[in-house]
Amino acid sequence: MASADKYDIVIVGAGPVGLMLSTCLARWGYKIKHIDNRPEPTATGRADGIQPRSLDLLRNMGLKRAIMAHHPAKVYEVAFWDPAAGNQGIHRTGTWASCPKFIDARYPFTTLLHQGHIEQAFIGDMETNGTSVQRPWTITDFENDGHDPTYPVSVTIQHVDGEQKGKETVRAKYLFSGEGARSFIRERLGVKMDFGDPISNVWGVMDGVVRTNFPDIKMKCTIHSDAGSIMVIPREDNMVRLYIQIASSTDPDFNPRKTATEKEVQEKAKQILKPYYLEWDSVEWYSVYPIGQGIASKYTLDERVFLGGDCCHTHSPKAGQGMNTAFLDAANLAWKIHHVESDFSPRSILSTYEPERKSVAQNLLSFDAKYAKLFSTRPPTAGEIGSAHQASELEENDFVKTFKAGCEFTSGYGVAYGSNVFNWCPSHSAKSHLFLRHPEATTLRTGRILIPSTVTRVADANEVHLEQEIPLNGSYRIYIFGGKPYRDSSNAPSSSVRALQSLAQYLAHPKSFYQRFSFLPSHRVSHHEPHNVHSAFFSICTIFSLPRPRIAERRSTLLGAGNLFASYRDHIYADDVPDIRVPESLADGAVGAAHAKMGFGDDGGVVVVRPDGYVGCVVKLVEGSGTGEALEEYFKAFTTDGKAQLRPNL
Amino acid sequence: MASADKYDIVIVGAGPVGLMLSTCLARWGYKIKHIDNRPEPTATGRADGIQPRSLDLLRNMGLKRAIMAHHPAKVYEVAFWDPAAGNQGIHRTGTWASCPKFIDARYPFTTLLHQGHIEQAFIGDMETNGTSVQRPWTITDFENDGHDPTYPVSVTIQHVDGEQKGKETVRAKYLFSGEGARSFIRERLGVKMDFGDPISNVWGVMDGVVRTNFPDIKMKCTIHSDAGSIMVIPREDNMVRLYIQIASSTDPDFNPRKTATEKEVQEKAKQILKPYYLEWDSVEWYSVYPIGQGIASKYTLDERVFLGGDCCHTHSPKAGQGMNTAFLDAANLAWKIHHVESDFSPRSILSTYEPERKSVAQNLLSFDAKYAKLFSTRPPTAGEIGSAHQASELEENDFVKTFKAGCEFTSGYGVAYGSNVFNWCPSHSAKSHLFLRHPEATTLRTGRILIPSTVTRVADANEVHLEQEIPLNGSYRIYIFGGKPYRDSSNAPSSSVRALQSLAQYLAHPKSFYQRFSFLPSHRVSHHEPHNVHSAFFSICTIFSLPRPRIAERRSTLLGAGNLFASYRDHIYADDVPDIRVPESLADGAVGAAHAKMGFGDDGGVVVVRPDGYVGCVVKLVEGSGTGEALEEYFKAFTTDGKAQLRPNL
Repeated sequence: MASADKYDIVIVGAGPVGLMLSTCLARWGYKIKHIDNRPEPTATGRADGIQPRSLDLLRNMGLKRAIMAHHPAKVYEVAFWDPAAGNQGIHRTGTWASCPKFIDARYPFTTLLHQGHIEQAFIGDMETNGTSVQRPWTITDFENDGHDPTYPVSVTIQHVDGEQKGKETVRAKYLFSGEGARSFIRERLGVKMDFGDPISNVWGVMDGVVRTNFPDIKMKCTIHSDAGSIMVIPREDNMVRLYIQIASSTDPDFNPRKTATEKEVQEKAKQILKPYYLEWDSVEWYSVYPIGQGIASKYTLDERVFLGGDCCHTHSPKAGQGMNTAFLDAANLAWKIHHVESDFSPRSILSTYEPERKSVAQNLLSFDAKYAKLFSTRPPTAGEIGSAHQASELEENDFVKTFKAGCEFTSGYGVAYGSNVFNWCPSHSAKSHLFLRHPEATTLRTGRILIPSTVTRVADANEVHLEQEIPLNGSYRIYIFGGKPYRDSSNAPSSSVRALQSLAQYLAHPKSFYQRFSFLPSHRVSHHEPHNVHSAFFSICTIFSLPRPRIAERRSTLLGAGNLFASYRDHIYADDVPDIRVPESLADGAVGAAHAKMGFGDDGGVVVVRPDGYVGCVVKLVEGSGTGEALEEYFKAFTTDGKAQLRPNL
Repeated sequence: MASADKYDIVIVGAGPVGLMLSTCLARWGYKIKHIDNRPEPTATGRADGIQPRSLDLLRNMGLKRAIMAHHPAKVYEVAFWDPAAGNQGIHRTGTWASCPKFIDARYPFTTLLHQGHIEQAFIGDMETNGTSVQRPWTITDFENDGHDPTYPVSVTIQHVDGEQKGKETVRAKYLFSGEGARSFIRERLGVKMDFGDPISNVWGVMDGVVRTNFPDIKMKCTIHSDAGSIMVIPREDNMVRLYIQIASSTDPDFNPRKTATEKEVQEKAKQILKPYYLEWDSVEWYSVYPIGQGIASKYTLDERVFLGGDCCHTHSPKAGQGMNTAFLDAANLAWKIHHVESDFSPRSILSTYEPERKSVAQNLLSFDAKYAKLFSTRPPTAGEIGSAHQASELEENDFVKTFKAGCEFTSGYGVAYGSNVFNWCPSHSAKSHLFLRHPEATTLRTGRILIPSTVTRVADANEVHLEQEIPLNGSYRIYIFGGKPYRDSSNAPSSSVRALQSLAQYLAHPKSFYQRFSFLPSHRVSHHEPHNVHSAFFSICTIFSLPRPRIAERRSTLLGAGNLFASYRDHIYADDVPDIRVPESLADGAVGAAHAKMGFGDDGGVVVVRPDGYVGCVVKLVEGSGTGEALEEYFKAFTTDGKAQLRPNL
């Protein structure tokens, strides 16, 4: 169908949002025209921290190792420095984990690395899937003219040095703007940026190698002093990034055109850091830029032309959110486009992109506004508030309180999608009484990330991270927690084993949602395909509260001949790994830590996770057809009647 | 001094032992001529598993990530399969961890990867340090003629296709044979292979991708059946390696020239695996080879020409020991040559290479002999021994018993170097009463690996693996466990803080062993050098039983102005991470898990670890000069009077 000038999607901009979208769609076999107006990937500067949640996502895509190979700095804690009493310069008033223990994170740190290295990991992956970025090219025109119903969008692109160096007009199913704050596409669509309670700032940012006796130079620090405020962020290769606020609209004499030279900023940093010394060995990058807070009023007008990343939300860099939000914008959109284009879901699901991602951006902006305002305000010293307490016992100031309250958000685990067709809640069209609600019946919350857990893979006895066992393959992930198969010494299988067999039978029925989207016999996958055994849209993991050797021994009882779950040979797990967060699991021979973390008891339960890692629904595991019917109702809300039977591109 | 034809060392053979030696010495700045008679690195086959201990070592060299990037198979458990009663084929009689929990291993699994990938990680690292392998070249002559006292060894090498394609005669300080079992150098030296109680075997080995319903195909398995014995080893890329014993000298009709075709071996494997089916999708490599058990009587004659790896010890491949033993041969020799050549140690320390490594090889051979003999013996079935027990309750047969007993050995943690100048024992020349003995006063054993522990690095609050914090840099690693600095609520520093200060003062004295080998002022290192702050031969880590924020707050008390340990800014640690092996550390706010693992209490202690990771001595930390004097005595046993002041090559 597609000829040389027809593409599934045209992606404009090869920053984090464009690269994430391109990488996902390239893996799933889509034909992509990806352009960027820069001649090369980012060479210096511009890095943001990779949040704990984003690192989960990158690992799920198999990109974490390529990023870690560059030895990024890891931020586990943030130190707060404030003015010391009596003009003694600054002193540390406390520290706080960047991802505190109340957040159950697999990687409880922020990863700091030059953005070019991060981009390269994506570009390399795209290239193995036949997609590359055409540089330096720019978009000059586009229209959803509908002349071709399958490829309704016409897009004109050309070389940045003028059309004599190259110009193309192509047709596409979709057009995506990952152009950043100054988006041609957004402007052309007439989508306004909303500035609710705008805080604008002028920032200086400097990357370099320094010499100092400041003890926290390898920590993330927020420093308030009588000479101004600064944020210190460690980087790879012994570098440190300093963010210096040069002007803020909260200043009485605010001037958004205020600027500062490299030398002036260094001088200011030296003043702020007193009584410690600070000298530069080298400066890798320096920039001054004004930033206003804004959010796009719409992320799409026609569900053909979409916006994402900085093009939709701009804010101060300090909370380290730009790249992370961009990644998740793209990850959210990618599988929805995939499911529509492969006829698994109706076109209407594309309408969930904007509300899911815009609410996240709104939360980000209100956090950022509060944080940015406080950051530029010098807090009182202990002396000034007349306290005789020691520094560590000081009342926490508002800045620290805001920071701590924001940890879930800044780690990326605060993202919570509201209820809709994907994220079950009582008003969902699926009404079975078997859906389990938070917090009464499960610790899992729909629209939130799956809680991490460590289990033993039965096939090879490897200890693995269950939440990572299914890669970002565009499939729904169905986790069947099979509970405790043996509850007394009789060796008689428990009701949860029978419930699991009921569910397997239900899913094996030709009319079930699971079979409706299975591969045609002629498209059967390789004997060695571990994840998409029957369908491109579902992957299943089964977990038993039993030591691994017992599962191996009892396999034919637990997953008897013809049991559908048994076909996922690499996705049967023993919940037999002790977890420090589940004290009872530390006893010798104890099992069930992963079940306990999900809030499941001996009866187990079923968790459906969206292709992007967020929990869709949680269902009770019961004997009979109830569990299967509940899942059927749930999937009915967003699947077609058609028989999508996509052949895997793996 | 060195001209074009003079080298610090000529290394012959680019298998595991030669590459490890070359990589270490290249990092430390030595000039190396490295040749191999193969035109390319290993393309297929020949892999051995990387033991848990070897993975520690590879990580310590920064090579682990490059190896893991190839997604090797990881073996956590071994399954035992034996003949089932009544000619029913085989059945699983049990499983056992390949590195059981009684061994405190950071990576409790064996890593299986094609040897070429492993070699490439070394070759890449060598190249960044200016050393490459000259191929396909071979050695034709050598002599320790002493014509040049600095470069006493003359070596002639030439292209394998004859001298018209290239021939060189060079002079070297050392010559090393990593040639493998058929060593020209060993032969020429007249070093005999000893065959104590020789078992020889003919083995078939086959790497390929299979289809099977055998449930443990992704596990390591030892299978005994009426049709013969086989070992299954999972590999990367869905491959599996099968080792099939074709003949053994324990057979009544043993013929060492017996062979078998690929088809015959496949047919035999199919018979052994019944009642399961087994088909090959592809075969990557197949080979039949006879192996005799042997050990070189000498590893060196003159401490100028050395042998290592398969050239010194040959045995069956089944215990997966060849490559691992080779790595450790080279790692043992490398730092000793480095210390002699940089004038830190007298030439006499080279005499410790042979006894340390030969005793390991002897243990390996006696384990292998026992294991190989049992492997080829079909154990009785449950029926045959008239037992009514279930399979899992069967008395363990001798094979399983030997396997379990050998776990410490096969994981690599069984290597225990005997007492000598480096490995303190009561007969050592250092007689201070402050040396702590195992098991009364410390859990650490000299000549054994440092026990792993997880701590928080104070500088950046990163959770790190203490045993990995100092890379393989040729330095002694001095770990100062500072104990509990505050023992009551008074905030008065405890005696261990004063003891630590005493030791810092001792080491700061210009005549101390530590200062004698410090850099000349003109050779001072970079401000950012973390490991070799004062000397190329020592790196120091200091660990306190105190939460990290408290150490940061109290730093000036704990490591006051001018304290020598404070100069290691990146090597101050908080022992505040809970450890599942130290139950009391799991309580909220508990500290001291790492101290407890070493067997230290509130008073701490000092551990000296050799450059290759093995414990040299453990000393009590006391106020006054005693601790420093004990270390002085210890180092005096193997250091020169000279002022070795090597400039770091980093």
